[in-house]
Amino acid sequence: MTAETLVLSVDAMGGDHAPESVMRGVALLAAEGRPVNFLLHGDEAQLRPYLDADPKLARVCEIAHTDKAVSMDAKPSQALRGGKNSSMWNALQAVKSGTAHVAISAGNTGALMAMSKLVLRMVPGVHRPALAASWPSPRGASIVLDVGANVEADAEQLVEFAIMGAAYSKAIHGKTDPSIGLLNIGSEELKGIESVRQAAEMLKGNEFGLNYYGFVEGNDISMGTTDVVVTDGYTGNIALKTAEGTAKLVGGFVKEALTSSILSKLGAVLARAGLKQLKQRLDPGNVNGGVFLGLNGIVLKSHGGTDAEGFATTLRLAYSVGNSTFHQDVEASLSRFQASHPEAEEAVST
Amino acid sequence: MTAETLVLSVDAMGGDHAPESVMRGVALLAAEGRPVNFLLHGDEAQLRPYLDADPKLARVCEIAHTDKAVSMDAKPSQALRGGKNSSMWNALQAVKSGTAHVAISAGNTGALMAMSKLVLRMVPGVHRPALAASWPSPRGASIVLDVGANVEADAEQLVEFAIMGAAYSKAIHGKTDPSIGLLNIGSEELKGIESVRQAAEMLKGNEFGLNYYGFVEGNDISMGTTDVVVTDGYTGNIALKTAEGTAKLVGGFVKEALTSSILSKLGAVLARAGLKQLKQRLDPGNVNGGVFLGLNGIVLKSHGGTDAEGFATTLRLAYSVGNSTFHQDVEASLSRFQASHPEAEEAVST
Repeated sequence: MTAETLVLSVDAMGGDHAPESVMRGVALLAAEGRPVNFLLHGDEAQLRPYLDADPKLARVCEIAHTDKAVSMDAKPSQALRGGKNSSMWNALQAVKSGTAHVAISAGNTGALMAMSKLVLRMVPGVHRPALAASWPSPRGASIVLDVGANVEADAEQLVEFAIMGAAYSKAIHGKTDPSIGLLNIGSEELKGIESVRQAAEMLKGNEFGLNYYGFVEGNDISMGTTDVVVTDGYTGNIALKTAEGTAKLVGGFVKEALTSSILSKLGAVLARAGLKQLKQRLDPGNVNGGVFLGLNGIVLKSHGGTDAEGFATTLRLAYSVGNSTFHQDVEASLSRFQASHPEAEEAVST
Repeated sequence: MTAETLVLSVDAMGGDHAPESVMRGVALLAAEGRPVNFLLHGDEAQLRPYLDADPKLARVCEIAHTDKAVSMDAKPSQALRGGKNSSMWNALQAVKSGTAHVAISAGNTGALMAMSKLVLRMVPGVHRPALAASWPSPRGASIVLDVGANVEADAEQLVEFAIMGAAYSKAIHGKTDPSIGLLNIGSEELKGIESVRQAAEMLKGNEFGLNYYGFVEGNDISMGTTDVVVTDGYTGNIALKTAEGTAKLVGGFVKEALTSSILSKLGAVLARAGLKQLKQRLDPGNVNGGVFLGLNGIVLKSHGGTDAEGFATTLRLAYSVGNSTFHQDVEASLSRFQASHPEAEEAVST
C-alpha cells in the first residue's frame, strides 16, 4: 500500500452474514479498479481463503488478524467492556492511528456507536456525534440526521447537525451549496418544540456558511425538498423506520396487486424489467450506509443484514467520503459557528 | 328525525372541494340506507340544489343555514376570533347542544382543533385532546395517536392517549382487548426520551384495563404489531407525514417501473385490476378521518383535499364511533387511571 492510496478499514466479522457478505462486497469493489486498499480485521483462517481464491483481491487487501468479534446482540456497555481488540475495535483503531482513512462495519449499531466515541473521540466543538442516513427522493437522495445516535438534541446541537450534514452532502452528493431544512410539524401557530424553534432562529441569518431553507415536514423528506434534513435522533430514527416500514408495506401491496389474477401475473411477467428496477430502488441495500458524523475519523455503518451488493454500496460511499474535504469543511463551519455563539462552546459537556 | 337515529353534524363548507365533495359524500352514505340523519351547516343557496335533485338524500338531511365559513388558510387564532356561527362552529355547537352525535369537517385542521377545544371542552380528567389516525397494515388498520393535536406530551398524557386510543380501537375496529405499543427507538440501552420511559413504567402493570405490549419502533406501525401506537403529537405528525411521503414516492416508482418500456406498459394494462386495487389502498381517502379524542363530543376531520368517496369514508367512521360505547369506555378507564394516579388529576392545567 502506498501513502497516497485511500485505505478502508473493514470490520470483516460484523454483520449477520459476515465474513461472507463482507468479503464478497470487498471483492466487488476491488474488481472496479479504484485506487483503494483494504485493511481487513478478523479471523485470518476465515478470511485468507477469499484472498487465495482471488489474486486481484489479494493484491489490494491486508489481513489484520484477531479472533475476537462483537456479537450482533451485545449491549453497547458489554461491547465496550469485552470488545477491546475485537475486529470492530481494531477497525476503528486503524483510523485513529492514521493507518486507514475510513472505518466500515455492518456489525452491532449500538456497539459501533459507543466504541467509535471511545476510540475516536469527538471533533473539538461538537457536543454529540450524529448518525446520518441517505434517503431516496425523486431528486436523487437527501441526507437526514440524526437518525439515532442520540435521543435528544438542543438548539446548538441541531445547528451542529446542520453544519455536519451540509459538509456531508457536499462530500458525497457533490452539492456545492446544499439546502438545509429543519424537520417540524405544519401548523402555523404550533411551530414545534422549543429546541427546533430556537435552532431556526440561529440558522435564519444563514451564518456559518449554511443555506438554510426553513422548516420542512415529514412528507418533504421523500420529496427531496431540501438536500439535508435536520432533526433529533429520536424523531429521526422513528421517521427512518416508519419510512422503511411503509416502503415494505407498499411493496407487499404491489406484490399482491400483481399476483391477484392470472392476467395480473401475466402483466407482471411482461413488466419484469421495470419491476426489477423498482425492487432495486426499494432495497435498503442500495441506500446502505449510515455515517457517524462529528468524530475524529469517519465511520460508516452498513446494514446488519446486508448482502455483498449492499456492503459494496457502503464501501463506495466510504470511498467518496474518504476522498472528499469533509473534515476540513466541518471544522471550518464549526469554528465560524463557535465564534458567533461562544455560549455553545462553553456548554460542551462530556 | 327521530331521537333514536344517529345524527351527523356536517360542516358542508369545509374542504378544498366543498360543498361539492361533501354533498356528494353525504349522498353516497344516504344511498347505503343506514339509520342516520345529516345536519348540514352551510350556505342554503349552495346546498339546497343537491337535495332538490335527490329526494332520497333530502329525506335524511336538514340544512342549518349560515353564510359564514372558515377559510382553509386561516390561522387558528383568526378562526377563533371571526369564526363564531360559521359552518364549522355550528357543526360543533350542534354536538354540544345534543342536537347531533358527531361533528365532521374537511376544513382547516388547526381551526377545527382550536374551535373544538373551545366549543366542546375537554372530558374531565383529560389534560390535552389528541388527534388519532387510522394507519393501514397487513393486519387491517392500527390507530396512531397523537398525530398533531399537541407538540409535546408528558408521561401522564401518554397514558391518557393510550386509554383513549384503546377505547377508540374498540369502537371502530371492534377489538375486544386492543394491544398498546409505545413508540420508541430500538437500542437496548437508549430507551428513548424520559416521558416515554416513565409512561412505560405506568403502563407496565396493565392497570386501567389496558393490554400494554411494550415499546414499538417506526417500522412496527405499518407492520401492525399493535392495535394502538401511542406517541407525542410532534413525533406522531412527523411519522404520519413521512409515511404519506414514502407511499407517494414508492407509488411514483411503481408508475415509472410500469411505463419504462412498451412491454412494461402492456404488462400494466393486463394487471389493471390489481393495480386499481393498489391505488385504492394507497389513496389517503380510504384511510380518511382523523378523530379528536378527549373532548365532550366526537369530532372527525376528513382530509382537506378529499373527494366524495373520501368524505363518505369519514362519514362511515363517524357512524361507527357514534354508535359505539366509546365515551363510556374512555370515562371508565380514565377514572381508574386517576384513582391510581391522583397526581395526574392534580396536574390538570388549562
